[in-house]
Amino acid sequence: MENTLLHPDEALAQAGIAFPVDERPADIVETLNTLPAEKAAGILDGFTAERAIEVLDLPGLDDAADIVQHLPPAKAVTLLQGLSADRLTDIFHDLDASARDSLIDRLDADTRDSLNRLLSYPEQSAGSIMTVEFVSVPGNWTVGQTLDHIRKVESTRETVYSIYVLHPVRKTLQQAVTLRRLIAGDPGAPILSVAARRTPITISPLASREEAARLISKYDLLAIPVVSRSGHVLGIVTVDDVIDEIVKSGTEDAQRFGGVEALEEPYLRTGFGEMIRKRAGWLSVLFLSEMLTASAMQYFEAELEKAIVLTLFIPLIMSSGGNSGSQATSLLIRALALGEVQLRDWWRVALRELPTGLMLGAILGVIGMCRIFLWQHLGFYDYGEHWMLIALTVGAALVGIVTFGSMAGSMLPFILQRLGFDPASASAPFVATLVDVTGLVIYFAVAAAILTGTLL
Amino acid sequence: MENTLLHPDEALAQAGIAFPVDERPADIVETLNTLPAEKAAGILDGFTAERAIEVLDLPGLDDAADIVQHLPPAKAVTLLQGLSADRLTDIFHDLDASARDSLIDRLDADTRDSLNRLLSYPEQSAGSIMTVEFVSVPGNWTVGQTLDHIRKVESTRETVYSIYVLHPVRKTLQQAVTLRRLIAGDPGAPILSVAARRTPITISPLASREEAARLISKYDLLAIPVVSRSGHVLGIVTVDDVIDEIVKSGTEDAQRFGGVEALEEPYLRTGFGEMIRKRAGWLSVLFLSEMLTASAMQYFEAELEKAIVLTLFIPLIMSSGGNSGSQATSLLIRALALGEVQLRDWWRVALRELPTGLMLGAILGVIGMCRIFLWQHLGFYDYGEHWMLIALTVGAALVGIVTFGSMAGSMLPFILQRLGFDPASASAPFVATLVDVTGLVIYFAVAAAILTGTLL
Repeated sequence: MENTLLHPDEALAQAGIAFPVDERPADIVETLNTLPAEKAAGILDGFTAERAIEVLDLPGLDDAADIVQHLPPAKAVTLLQGLSADRLTDIFHDLDASARDSLIDRLDADTRDSLNRLLSYPEQSAGSIMTVEFVSVPGNWTVGQTLDHIRKVESTRETVYSIYVLHPVRKTLQQAVTLRRLIAGDPGAPILSVAARRTPITISPLASREEAARLISKYDLLAIPVVSRSGHVLGIVTVDDVIDEIVKSGTEDAQRFGGVEALEEPYLRTGFGEMIRKRAGWLSVLFLSEMLTASAMQYFEAELEKAIVLTLFIPLIMSSGGNSGSQATSLLIRALALGEVQLRDWWRVALRELPTGLMLGAILGVIGMCRIFLWQHLGFYDYGEHWMLIALTVGAALVGIVTFGSMAGSMLPFILQRLGFDPASASAPFVATLVDVTGLVIYFAVAAAILTGTLL
Repeated sequence: MENTLLHPDEALAQAGIAFPVDERPADIVETLNTLPAEKAAGILDGFTAERAIEVLDLPGLDDAADIVQHLPPAKAVTLLQGLSADRLTDIFHDLDASARDSLIDRLDADTRDSLNRLLSYPEQSAGSIMTVEFVSVPGNWTVGQTLDHIRKVESTRETVYSIYVLHPVRKTLQQAVTLRRLIAGDPGAPILSVAARRTPITISPLASREEAARLISKYDLLAIPVVSRSGHVLGIVTVDDVIDEIVKSGTEDAQRFGGVEALEEPYLRTGFGEMIRKRAGWLSVLFLSEMLTASAMQYFEAELEKAIVLTLFIPLIMSSGGNSGSQATSLLIRALALGEVQLRDWWRVALRELPTGLMLGAILGVIGMCRIFLWQHLGFYDYGEHWMLIALTVGAALVGIVTFGSMAGSMLPFILQRLGFDPASASAPFVATLVDVTGLVIYFAVAAAILTGTLL
């Protein structure tokens, strides 16, 4: 055939890839992630439907939506119908609008209905990552009936380890039963007799995925039911989805703290243009803000000309403010994310950061003054006749700047949260920039106070 | 009684805390975490042994070792014997040597033996977080025999959702069976007929806990068997332990990236002295390194005196280098942690960061030059007759410094990993400091090249 489309086997061969028949789907995903979507689609197309579905079902597969768009439409529909409901929703969220519309019409009615329902939840919500394939039984069943039911539906459910017991008439959630308690129970006993003593932990479909992760992790659950206001179980969020979520949000937070917009794909697969966009934005904003330092320096130019010796310590002093701010911010972002600290605790934190900043500033101040004493006495540099006053200026400025850095760095995540932003949007470079400008002003103010009449 | 020790009820009352009888252990833990260890011990002592064990068994309880040391020894022994093996090991790792010795002798022989075995694994290893309470059956059993066995041992096992099938004679691991496949199976069928098609994913006891977390997360497992070189199952690591591990290591990484030594306790529970120690160390090291900037400035003092206008841009230019370095470091730390990038990929990364850095530097360089043009033309500031050369100096220096920042920031995690350190020990302040000194040298070198003969 003389066309540009490769036959699947050729695509496989050309990519130099042949998977052993018992290769694990997670390992296949790892390989596919290194290939362009078109090649990956060719390989999936060459698999049996069962195997292709197993692979496509893994959230670890990047670009799944892109891959689906490169599949022949009939094949795409077959594979999509075999996916778990939460994964299907995930992929549909990422499809182009045109592909989405054309594919959704070809799905069977049941799949389409459940998809439309799941797509209606906001993208970062528990509802958007839940699966509707869970096990529920009426509260008037016995242990034996429930076990028989599980045996029948096992293959079509994402997890059968948590069973949700519904009110026989109202169908609202009554209790949760674990499979281990169920098999240990007497088959003739009522299902409620083996249920947990406590009412189940639930989550609203509109709660954040982070909240689902937090609850599952805190209560060591295998799944958490997503419950409507009327008490009906809409779906469940399972522990494996939550692990992916925790890892993903850890990556996003780390990248944002480094001052980068979170990448959507792994580092080596992010294109050059995308990489520049994700980095240039913040870098330019920071650069523009940091220009205020040039303005501040211009403002103090007269002082600088009189005492050029003051410029020597500018980088040292400014970086110390940025570093202490970065420390405080990283501590507080994490404490807020883990719920160790609440918004209302801001004053407790401020009351801790104030003495901490003063102490840290004093430590650096003493080191800085020692350096000036040493250099002066050892003859490495001559700071002039007022060297002791210069040392005092540097020491005092450090106390002020490090204290300011700790305070600003610790309060910034609270301010962001209060304004409705994610506290994790505070980045180390952002804090450093914030502290730099103020740091310069503090430095020159301290210098003016101490050196006016002598050097200035 | 006229003594300083409080009766448990008094301790509870004095702390103003009364737990409802059906309060969840995880919620009790949250409250205990806000109390000093002595008070928490008093409250635990007032609980029934069963309830106290449930609470102490949760890894979320900070200071568990401290709390145990504040319990009456007989009570401590009762509670410790009731804990799961992995949690017991965890607590013993944190006990003072004297408490450890006195308590270990009072444990029953079985608990002591399993504890000693687990304590022999290094603290960050999979062996140290595994539990020995898992279900294993010989490979010649039937599905029904296995189910009967699980019913009997269910209450003494941490998880029964993965069942390990051992060679009937050699007792080595043959297969893993999930409980869901087991209950769906025919009771008369041999156990191996419902086993997974693939050989089970296993981990060595000496592998890192991060590796256990990575495997469980990648293959969506509920537990991973820890297998000796001879093929015997030593224990299992369960998904809930792994979630705690992922969250904990995420926090440590975030704190380290912010330039703080990882805190052992939540922010608000870390004492003032401890907080200073965790922050002052790095801050002082960074400060001492940053002193090189003062030395560099002294070295270029002649140039500074001739062209004071150059000093105006020092903070701006240096911070841009630090920011681009911080971006690159955060991207690479995370890519290395997730295995998206391997040590051997360093040159690929270098080949990407070089053009990225040049491009980002060019963007900032153009913005910086525009600023100088604008200020000059709008009359905000007079940069003198050579203002165009100054603009050129700033622009060229930014290209050089941002490129250097991106390269240094991206290579640092590789260098640390190559030297056997955790790549995540690279912090934003560390990168900024590294780039600051070089940044100054680049700036003055560019200035010398462009301005010698005019301003210099």
